[in-house]
Amino acid sequence: MRDEFRADLQIVSQLLVDMAEAVRAAMRKATKALLTADRDAAEAVIARDAEVDGLYRQVDDRVYDLLARQAPVASDLRTVVTALQVAADLERMGDLADHVAKTALRRHPSPAVPAELRGVFTEMAEVADRIAEKIAKVLSRPDADLAAELDRDDDAMDALHRELFAVLLHDDWPYGAETAIDGALLGRFYERYADHAVNAGRQVVYRVTGDTI
Amino acid sequence: MRDEFRADLQIVSQLLVDMAEAVRAAMRKATKALLTADRDAAEAVIARDAEVDGLYRQVDDRVYDLLARQAPVASDLRTVVTALQVAADLERMGDLADHVAKTALRRHPSPAVPAELRGVFTEMAEVADRIAEKIAKVLSRPDADLAAELDRDDDAMDALHRELFAVLLHDDWPYGAETAIDGALLGRFYERYADHAVNAGRQVVYRVTGDTI
Repeated sequence: MRDEFRADLQIVSQLLVDMAEAVRAAMRKATKALLTADRDAAEAVIARDAEVDGLYRQVDDRVYDLLARQAPVASDLRTVVTALQVAADLERMGDLADHVAKTALRRHPSPAVPAELRGVFTEMAEVADRIAEKIAKVLSRPDADLAAELDRDDDAMDALHRELFAVLLHDDWPYGAETAIDGALLGRFYERYADHAVNAGRQVVYRVTGDTI
Repeated sequence: MRDEFRADLQIVSQLLVDMAEAVRAAMRKATKALLTADRDAAEAVIARDAEVDGLYRQVDDRVYDLLARQAPVASDLRTVVTALQVAADLERMGDLADHVAKTALRRHPSPAVPAELRGVFTEMAEVADRIAEKIAKVLSRPDADLAAELDRDDDAMDALHRELFAVLLHDDWPYGAETAIDGALLGRFYERYADHAVNAGRQVVYRVTGDTI
């Protein structure tokens, strides 16, 4: 029974790593679509969002099956239920990559992001990518130090978000309301992507240490 | 054991209803703060967000306790785990009411919403309120018909969201980028509030019928 539990849990854990890698790849490609007005990249992200949803359903099925057959308690119970909550965060990260891709597509062949904002979005995308990479690592092997780094990365994302708004709200903003709105919503997509990743990281650490960070 | 399970479940169910009523009251008050530049109302919403978070933690604790002590299976298991997912949606609805209140406060004593947008935000708030009311009812007594109504309410919210953007992106928009950005983000807060409510409603119906809608 115990070995079976470990084997089942290993499958769930691998599904979460697969989800994390998929939503990382999705945001990388969505950023490429955004910054280079690449229609194929945008369409590929949108087409593949269903894969992430499919992985989420697999996690859901496996977790219910595990709870029903094995009735885990204590830290094993926490581990199994946390998987469901982490999967929900990862699924939402996939949705946010999809939103970025759709914004790029809506403006194609024009770029959705004007020259003044390319720098800040490039940096936001780098932080998002770093965060997604760490989530995949933390899910493979829980690590409180690495999870704490996620909080610092999230602070960096918040600082970039403020920097973005300073540009959008500057008196000299030359592009009018539509481009400002796109910029504000895109900023929110990257920021929420990071928030969900940090939330997932906290859940994993809580599972391991019993402490919230 | 069976009676004890029912009694525990009843407590969890009541906590979810309390959460639904709290996030409904929060969004009503946040809307009042937004449309009447009411500083006290905005501050009250922000101060009380911690109550919703507290209820969420209580649901979390009770669910783990229930799973560990009673090891439910089949539909009982689904009911218990669903409570955790519904609580996560409700908690996020509270956050979104908090975001609306903070936007109102940031612009105080000016109104965050100009005259041209008051109508559409009044309607969005009405839909949000109707949705939150139905969620509280569905949680008290699961009802697939009522849950299906939530989907129609969500369609109404999406239509209002499109109407809002038509105003924001109209060539005659007289208010510049900052007010447009506030309008776009506020629109997203109401729309996401509705999305989370519909998601919670779907979970409850799935729990009862085993069918996704």
